[in-house]
Amino acid sequence: MENNKTEILSGIHPVFEALRAGRRNFHSLFLKKEYQRSDLNRTRINKICQYAEKRGLRIEYVEQLFLDKLIKGTKHQGIAARVSYYPILGLSDFFIMHKKSENLPFVLILENIEDPHNFGALIRTALCAGVDCIMIPKDRSVSPVPSVSRASAGAMEHAQIFKITNVANTIKKLKQKGAWVAGLDASGDTTLYNADFSGFFILVVGGEHKGIRPLVKKECDFLISIPVKGAVNSLNASVAGGIALYEAARQRG
Amino acid sequence: MENNKTEILSGIHPVFEALRAGRRNFHSLFLKKEYQRSDLNRTRINKICQYAEKRGLRIEYVEQLFLDKLIKGTKHQGIAARVSYYPILGLSDFFIMHKKSENLPFVLILENIEDPHNFGALIRTALCAGVDCIMIPKDRSVSPVPSVSRASAGAMEHAQIFKITNVANTIKKLKQKGAWVAGLDASGDTTLYNADFSGFFILVVGGEHKGIRPLVKKECDFLISIPVKGAVNSLNASVAGGIALYEAARQRG
Repeated sequence: MENNKTEILSGIHPVFEALRAGRRNFHSLFLKKEYQRSDLNRTRINKICQYAEKRGLRIEYVEQLFLDKLIKGTKHQGIAARVSYYPILGLSDFFIMHKKSENLPFVLILENIEDPHNFGALIRTALCAGVDCIMIPKDRSVSPVPSVSRASAGAMEHAQIFKITNVANTIKKLKQKGAWVAGLDASGDTTLYNADFSGFFILVVGGEHKGIRPLVKKECDFLISIPVKGAVNSLNASVAGGIALYEAARQRG
Repeated sequence: MENNKTEILSGIHPVFEALRAGRRNFHSLFLKKEYQRSDLNRTRINKICQYAEKRGLRIEYVEQLFLDKLIKGTKHQGIAARVSYYPILGLSDFFIMHKKSENLPFVLILENIEDPHNFGALIRTALCAGVDCIMIPKDRSVSPVPSVSRASAGAMEHAQIFKITNVANTIKKLKQKGAWVAGLDASGDTTLYNADFSGFFILVVGGEHKGIRPLVKKECDFLISIPVKGAVNSLNASVAGGIALYEAARQRG
């Protein structure tokens, strides 16, 4: 039973946002003993305690060493939780959710992102830019693991992330439902500022190294490039994605 | 004599861009022995060899272990160089350079960036967005060290970076020369899309944690905020800076 599987979230943002989002089951919540002292500035810790109380969750105060062993290698900021797996969705969920919905969705497909930091940063920016759902391929992407939640400053806990089997086929199906699809590609012949981001819109962002694969590119209605100047004319994947997402947000209002 | 001080650059991008920019003196250039094999895909290495030859630089082929010891802890991709310090500029250089220049400069002030990755990403994006010069405070910022060059994918080697003693005083002086100054601040009352980025323009980006300091904020003509939606409504520092830089680039054309 996949539902019984657990993983460890750590760090103030991921744990706090997971509590706030209320989508994961909390099996245990660990705080380092020092957080029991009342003379500390513990605004964020207090908020975590409040949310824990609301959910009837008992906080276990533990030694720093216990957390060091539990997390292994990443900074935990004295907080960790054993939680159920991330509530990932499937394409059928998307069709059910958006059948009822009246607004035309803004979808981000992350085709082949390999770096958890880029993945996390893109999720965080997408939420701020008003993206309704994020799709990732089953086999060609980092999964929404705890390190991504951390890189997203906890934004991942609120995102709607869908795992899809085949990107090109999914795009075909979404186009049949009226979607308009743009790929972000350095060789694209539509400048970012001339693109139309309105309606049921899908932005495809490719991997850090190889960009969008040819089979997926073929399914895009147009390819957008970001104008670049200077001697080193290439942008970081998460910055480029952020710029495109925000131009879309500007146009969609 | 500061000019005699050297540091170690490593990684393909930083070394290649430093060679291409031609602003640092190369004391030695090390490549791992394996790069001598002709059956490897070595397009980028070949380019480095070509630039080295142009400058009359002898390549020293060394063991992997030699590079591991020289670099200590960072991935060197089998390439390193002992080079003169980064050619940092001062405010007086700015006034000399822009006295002659006919175009109205686009200046980025990074007020208090602490993370080398954010600093590198911002330099890289700034160059792509057409920023003419980047100013950083003497005491309150990461310096343009090799790890920043790496985080910028080598873009730092082409950037004009100025170290200034006091940010507020520098802004005052630049305003006397006709500059128009905007601070990027989450509490800003001018939306990004309503701001005017034309002419001799300065964008101030604050630190990751505390943003722009009050004394500097006071000197800004206006404060710009990026509209954010969703549950976790805050952007990563380098992404927020990138979005603002590109909105400026869009308007400046």
